[in-house]
Amino acid sequence: MTVQEEGMTVQVVLALVGAGRMGKVHGRALAGLEGVRVAWVVDSASEAAKSLAKSLGARSTAVLADALGDTAVDGVVITTPAPTHAELIIAVAEAGKAIFVEKPIAADVASGLRAVNAVERAGVPAQVGFQRRYDPAYLEARLAIAEGRLGRPWVFRGVGRDPGPLPLDYLLTSGGVFLDMGSHDLDTARWWLGEVDEVYATGGALAYPALAERGLADTAVAVLRFRNGAVGTVEVSWRNPYGYEVRAEAVGELGRVVAEQDRYPELNLYDNKGGHFPRPQDFETRFRQSYIAEREAFAEGLRKGVALEPSPRDALESLRLALAAQRSLEEGRPVRVEEVQ
Amino acid sequence: MTVQEEGMTVQVVLALVGAGRMGKVHGRALAGLEGVRVAWVVDSASEAAKSLAKSLGARSTAVLADALGDTAVDGVVITTPAPTHAELIIAVAEAGKAIFVEKPIAADVASGLRAVNAVERAGVPAQVGFQRRYDPAYLEARLAIAEGRLGRPWVFRGVGRDPGPLPLDYLLTSGGVFLDMGSHDLDTARWWLGEVDEVYATGGALAYPALAERGLADTAVAVLRFRNGAVGTVEVSWRNPYGYEVRAEAVGELGRVVAEQDRYPELNLYDNKGGHFPRPQDFETRFRQSYIAEREAFAEGLRKGVALEPSPRDALESLRLALAAQRSLEEGRPVRVEEVQ
Amino acid sequence: MTVQEEGMTVQVVLALVGAGRMGKVHGRALAGLEGVRVAWVVDSASEAAKSLAKSLGARSTAVLADALGDTAVDGVVITTPAPTHAELIIAVAEAGKAIFVEKPIAADVASGLRAVNAVERAGVPAQVGFQRRYDPAYLEARLAIAEGRLGRPWVFRGVGRDPGPLPLDYLLTSGGVFLDMGSHDLDTARWWLGEVDEVYATGGALAYPALAERGLADTAVAVLRFRNGAVGTVEVSWRNPYGYEVRAEAVGELGRVVAEQDRYPELNLYDNKGGHFPRPQDFETRFRQSYIAEREAFAEGLRKGVALEPSPRDALESLRLALAAQRSLEEGRPVRVEEVQ
Amino acid sequence: MTVQEEGMTVQVVLALVGAGRMGKVHGRALAGLEGVRVAWVVDSASEAAKSLAKSLGARSTAVLADALGDTAVDGVVITTPAPTHAELIIAVAEAGKAIFVEKPIAADVASGLRAVNAVERAGVPAQVGFQRRYDPAYLEARLAIAEGRLGRPWVFRGVGRDPGPLPLDYLLTSGGVFLDMGSHDLDTARWWLGEVDEVYATGGALAYPALAERGLADTAVAVLRFRNGAVGTVEVSWRNPYGYEVRAEAVGELGRVVAEQDRYPELNLYDNKGGHFPRPQDFETRFRQSYIAEREAFAEGLRKGVALEPSPRDALESLRLALAAQRSLEEGRPVRVEEVQ
Repeated sequence: MTVQEEGMTVQVVLALVGAGRMGKVHGRALAGLEGVRVAWVVDSASEAAKSLAKSLGARSTAVLADALGDTAVDGVVITTPAPTHAELIIAVAEAGKAIFVEKPIAADVASGLRAVNAVERAGVPAQVGFQRRYDPAYLEARLAIAEGRLGRPWVFRGVGRDPGPLPLDYLLTSGGVFLDMGSHDLDTARWWLGEVDEVYATGGALAYPALAERGLADTAVAVLRFRNGAVGTVEVSWRNPYGYEVRAEAVGELGRVVAEQDRYPELNLYDNKGGHFPRPQDFETRFRQSYIAEREAFAEGLRKGVALEPSPRDALESLRLALAAQRSLEEGRPVRVEEVQ
Repeated sequence: MTVQEEGMTVQVVLALVGAGRMGKVHGRALAGLEGVRVAWVVDSASEAAKSLAKSLGARSTAVLADALGDTAVDGVVITTPAPTHAELIIAVAEAGKAIFVEKPIAADVASGLRAVNAVERAGVPAQVGFQRRYDPAYLEARLAIAEGRLGRPWVFRGVGRDPGPLPLDYLLTSGGVFLDMGSHDLDTARWWLGEVDEVYATGGALAYPALAERGLADTAVAVLRFRNGAVGTVEVSWRNPYGYEVRAEAVGELGRVVAEQDRYPELNLYDNKGGHFPRPQDFETRFRQSYIAEREAFAEGLRKGVALEPSPRDALESLRLALAAQRSLEEGRPVRVEEVQ
Repeated sequence: MTVQEEGMTVQVVLALVGAGRMGKVHGRALAGLEGVRVAWVVDSASEAAKSLAKSLGARSTAVLADALGDTAVDGVVITTPAPTHAELIIAVAEAGKAIFVEKPIAADVASGLRAVNAVERAGVPAQVGFQRRYDPAYLEARLAIAEGRLGRPWVFRGVGRDPGPLPLDYLLTSGGVFLDMGSHDLDTARWWLGEVDEVYATGGALAYPALAERGLADTAVAVLRFRNGAVGTVEVSWRNPYGYEVRAEAVGELGRVVAEQDRYPELNLYDNKGGHFPRPQDFETRFRQSYIAEREAFAEGLRKGVALEPSPRDALESLRLALAAQRSLEEGRPVRVEEVQ
Repeated sequence: MTVQEEGMTVQVVLALVGAGRMGKVHGRALAGLEGVRVAWVVDSASEAAKSLAKSLGARSTAVLADALGDTAVDGVVITTPAPTHAELIIAVAEAGKAIFVEKPIAADVASGLRAVNAVERAGVPAQVGFQRRYDPAYLEARLAIAEGRLGRPWVFRGVGRDPGPLPLDYLLTSGGVFLDMGSHDLDTARWWLGEVDEVYATGGALAYPALAERGLADTAVAVLRFRNGAVGTVEVSWRNPYGYEVRAEAVGELGRVVAEQDRYPELNLYDNKGGHFPRPQDFETRFRQSYIAEREAFAEGLRKGVALEPSPRDALESLRLALAAQRSLEEGRPVRVEEVQ
């Protein structure tokens, strides 16, 4: 951390690892935060790193150690593809820097567990980028549940639909639709209702038939059994014809809560065919405030030393759940989450 | 049929079998139809039959043959408990009368098949009371799908939540939550997206713990695999804290359709705690117009000789699907619908 | 009243005067009521009367006295054009029959006052057809206000937009858009917030330019000053491009209530252009239940001898208010309601 | 302008005049913009200036000339009370700096005209803070109108309700509710539908009775006549029991557009009393993105030399309209906007 020349705000200095799709989203969000400076952009695709670094006023490098070796750096924001997360987390943790990592923390449980262990051993602050936990509506829903406004929980419902089309390469290396899309919904399921014991899933390669021969589905549904007896459904897809769609609901003995943003901008148009309204078309629009809020929480947490959330261990549990769903999808049978090691 | 004294409208003459919960709903609806006369109320609980008959200007009897022997009677409306449906359908079909029967057509597939065969052998017009098929929104959704506005279908979602509390006796003899509640949603699934091949379900006795020892769930979720590759979820419950809730949605390659009535009356109230709105509290309010419309379609079909829908065969398929869901719930494995014979 | 042959329900026997647009609406609604029989359709256009009578199982006549002379007739439902209402009310009142009359009760205050006096002198039950008073949402709003949920009222807002196009003859003889359309909104204003002291209005012949030379507006807005200090706006039009639209809201020191039905059927369709929904296209769809409910209230009132509402005196006050708005529109100045005699 | 040390983004350097309610809002928004630096906070209340400056990393002063004399300063953002705007605009224009000024540009037309003249004489870029012009929904509505989706415009409706309670001193020196609140809605009216020729308004001191003796209203309604023949209503209030509420709609021959944000966060809660949702409680929440967007447009305009909007001349016309409404409120007669000089 440094002290800003012009004033006395303690400044948090960050390195950004990954200059792709999410890197740009995070870069922009970080740039908007008071008291945060991005000092490094690390990416092996050096043109992307240079371009992003330039727009952020940061230095670029293809070598992580450059950033980790900079004593001014307080924390590292990891936005690379999922399979690289675990090793990066371990490297950063061992360098003693705080960590913000995009979900998932790893592509498999063993790697995820090593990452969690490294973080806990190093004792560094760490937060995983399930940004919905910072969405005003998801957060309010969680509070309502925690305050008992629903009573005992009975049912969960999560929906995540990406507009796509997404590059086939991305889909093939993503670990499956439950890992890529569903881990958000599954994290919400755990956050709102608690641990899940068993999952059954099915799906199809409906929008990208080429996925079929790889045993992958682009559209999938699952049912969940929670440890507390509640049940739930999750539906995810990589191709949605009407834009970006994310919803979650919970029903309990006393009530129901639904987080759903159905229109953006907040506008209705009417003509002789009826009413019409625009919808959020991408996750950046839908979660604009969440990304700001999760970054603020990360920076504020570093500045004040308060606990960060969700933790790598949370993310490990969501990973196991996503992998259980994926396994069920492949094997056509209910899978207990504890099977996934 | 008779000709009304005062004019020349051909009058459809009906007998109502069953004077319980649904009998009263149907009786009221029939009474509001132009050109329809309820001539008989048949029910073994003779006080209920007398009382309902009186309010409808009909005669009451505990003996079905009284009504079937009345040559003026064009058709019979069956609203008795599910297990009696099949035998009543057969009796009415053999008497050559038209049939309107509340869903399900039978409590088991064998009985249902006999009922379907009796109807088809007798060649009598027959309609099953899945009133959602006559709900303006469900109907419009079906038309949108049939016209190709969604393109190829990808996902179905059906939700049915009964406010309850319902008498435990009713629950124990209902055949399970998928048969009692879910058959409506499963009928919508078939009507909108086509045949279902496989179902997996899970659930719990969350609201009525006494159901647990009988192996019954009051709250259940299922995933569906459609023959055309689409997937879906269904969620049903016998106890809903915030009133009566029924929704259905379908997503296809080109769009999405959602039928959902979230408020009734159409009113928002605001105060310093935010906004508030009333909701439909029971199925009679939610489906007021559907019940009228399905009766009108039945009467009109009899008058004009046009085909009725949904047919007993439709109902038989929905029954198999509900039983498959119930079996999956009990056995904890995906069940192919063709297993259910 | 008569006793039905088949049962013991006391039957209310009515005559319907007027076989035009509203006559058919009312005829259908009355036909659906248990315990109500329409015995006569009275209309000088005898073909319309015959046709409507036939569909209702009633007798038709061009001579009001035929119906008034029928001792079985309990009440008369008047649905003729506005200018004929007052004389018909007087004739029916003098014949000692109950009265249901479509709004307005008269085309001018003097006639309206004579009609009110005739009704009060004869002591016959009388109800005016402001059907919004029986709309579930408008009624719930009124109850919320009466129960004090808004506290002291501050602001009223009423909107009424007719899809049109309407025949020019109808518009020219209607007495102006405030009398034809606005009287409903102005009746709601009085019903919810109390008496209005002053009104200022302006408007234009925007959709039917031919109205301009007759000094008529098809689209008009007004501001209201209520006796209790509240203020309000009313907006009415005879041509609305997106269907039938009626809304009302009230704001008070503690809250706000809005009655607004924005979609029918209750359906959302989504595609790559966003969301779309159907809207009510005509007042019959929008107020289907209100028409049934106001008829039920009328029949029930006759059967049980309870007071009917809104009364002819209510309607007279709404007429004065509509005429005040119309006068303001013509004279370009605020008009006190008491000026209108 | 300066070049940032770390990169090559051209930086816009601004001075902020006014450290009160709006100053803080703007300060926060400016701080979040890439490539913008607030160098000065100018305010006679030096503690507020110091505190705000500190949080923004800027220098504070009570003397405007300090900021105007700084050659690095590109533009000045004026957020002081309305009566000071005109003189500040003139001073900044004469110093050759770009101007962003909160609405209104002046408390009276003569001052406003002098400010407009000073800006036009100096040729400096200038933008007035009607932030709704940068709200995604208001902007989309404006585009829909400009593209002809409504056809010829017929009706406008604007509503602005501030939650309050506001300090009596603020209200008494604000110039009236139409100037303080209504100028936003009136600016929208002009922006969407064009010039207004005449206005009639009425209102009352309903929430702050102490305003009555000063001839002020806290709640007011107005009708507008547009030059193109359209009509409209505006409703404004300084005290709203259910939070911050801003809506606008326009109806034309082909359709209707409504900009209305009814819920925030995007959440529904249901229990046995029905549905409930949170609403925006303050203008900062409602217009969070607008404030960012108008600042971005200002900075981007300075950087690229493109025209800014709305212009001081726009603001002058809105001022005249607000003053006409206020005069009508006081004099109880329709007021032509051209009367206001």
